[in-house]
Amino acid sequence: MAEAPGSFPKTVAVVGLGLIGGSLALALRAAGVEVLGVDPDPAALARARARGAIASGATDLAPVADADLVVVAAPLERVADVAIAAARRMRPGAVLTDVGSVKAPVVAAVAAALPAGVRFVGGHPMAGNEGHGMAAADAALLRGRVFVLTPTSRTPPEAVAVMQAVITRLGMRPVLLDPVQHDEFVAQVSHLPYLLSLALDRAIADDARLVGGPTMQEMTRVARSPAAMWEAICRANREAILRALERFEGELAAVRRALLAQG
Amino acid sequence: MAEAPGSFPKTVAVVGLGLIGGSLALALRAAGVEVLGVDPDPAALARARARGAIASGATDLAPVADADLVVVAAPLERVADVAIAAARRMRPGAVLTDVGSVKAPVVAAVAAALPAGVRFVGGHPMAGNEGHGMAAADAALLRGRVFVLTPTSRTPPEAVAVMQAVITRLGMRPVLLDPVQHDEFVAQVSHLPYLLSLALDRAIADDARLVGGPTMQEMTRVARSPAAMWEAICRANREAILRALERFEGELAAVRRALLAQG
Repeated sequence: MAEAPGSFPKTVAVVGLGLIGGSLALALRAAGVEVLGVDPDPAALARARARGAIASGATDLAPVADADLVVVAAPLERVADVAIAAARRMRPGAVLTDVGSVKAPVVAAVAAALPAGVRFVGGHPMAGNEGHGMAAADAALLRGRVFVLTPTSRTPPEAVAVMQAVITRLGMRPVLLDPVQHDEFVAQVSHLPYLLSLALDRAIADDARLVGGPTMQEMTRVARSPAAMWEAICRANREAILRALERFEGELAAVRRALLAQG
Repeated sequence: MAEAPGSFPKTVAVVGLGLIGGSLALALRAAGVEVLGVDPDPAALARARARGAIASGATDLAPVADADLVVVAAPLERVADVAIAAARRMRPGAVLTDVGSVKAPVVAAVAAALPAGVRFVGGHPMAGNEGHGMAAADAALLRGRVFVLTPTSRTPPEAVAVMQAVITRLGMRPVLLDPVQHDEFVAQVSHLPYLLSLALDRAIADDARLVGGPTMQEMTRVARSPAAMWEAICRANREAILRALERFEGELAAVRRALLAQG
């Protein structure tokens, strides 16, 4: 039997033990939760076990059948498919969430294929660093950060209640947003900044880096995060990113006029 | 009598006790140097004295007559005039430097009006934060950072030697650059990033900030540093900044084509 609606999950399966999945697993275990790990890479499972992030794990989805809550932290381009496959093995009443960085297409795809009885709500913890994989995972990445939940009119309120309780227990801040609104916001605060960081990093000549101080370092940091992840994000959130880029270009033109106009 | 060429200065006058001047004063005193302070604001002098940044100070340039080395850390738009006024009171053989963020116009203006006997070399410590004034000064801002010196064919080698010794003593890294080359480099690593940070900060809608994580915070931090300082920098380094901006716009167009082209 699954947990009563809204009660705190005893067993959580984390599917995908990368930077975010691994950090969530570490934080959940530190909060006293039993964490089951799933990752296609046996080395990631071994690292997660060695670091105390998971109690046990598997390279297939078998563990999700034992979980009250399943968190799918697969790469964005696969997250909906993995969530649907996990949902098919979950017990009735269990809660399913994902941590994909773009929500509208993921939430629509999962909702369209969701088996009856599984309670799904999309999620997105606003955390990360330039690291990659379980090796870079760190519960401290999450503390104090916003964890967005994106319920729709079809989302069972109990799924939201369970996730709000979990998020709060991890020292994070739950924020509810419409999936489309989420995608519009993250285009502005995350995806656009990545594109600017990448273009800036390429615009700085190698010999100029010699005099680079903290501003250069912090403005080009995110450019060094995994390119494949960002390519998937740009594909999935193209329209919102283009709108954010257009706003930016208008502001840059105004800054240029104000500060660099012929004196 | 001034020090022998290249020897370490016993007494340093710091003119302008803002973020950078104050941080240099704190670092110099920590290195055992006698530091005299000059600032038109009596409150800045009082704060500097209270924090142990200066042994004594004045609101006029009188203290520079007692210094082996004078560091002018006035705002960029006044730094050349203040350096020239200081030079007229300095003893023969003493070394003069400044910390202006743009070097070619400052170095040319000071060199054109320099009294015989004063040894001038332009300087620029690549450090700072979003703070302002003596209250935000911190010797730790400087440690490990590059301190650019911009000698020309007219610069006495002893001025460079004295400054290299001081910079190294402060735990900073001396780098020699032609003034024009310096301005080209800082346009890329510092001034352009400021413009991008400012435009990005304005492009992010207020409600989107709710989901802003570390990337948004670090990409918009420098936008919050004092606007008047940046206006002066943009005026003084306009051409190099426009060249850097053009490089950036080319790179951004390429990033846009690669990541956001119609799939």
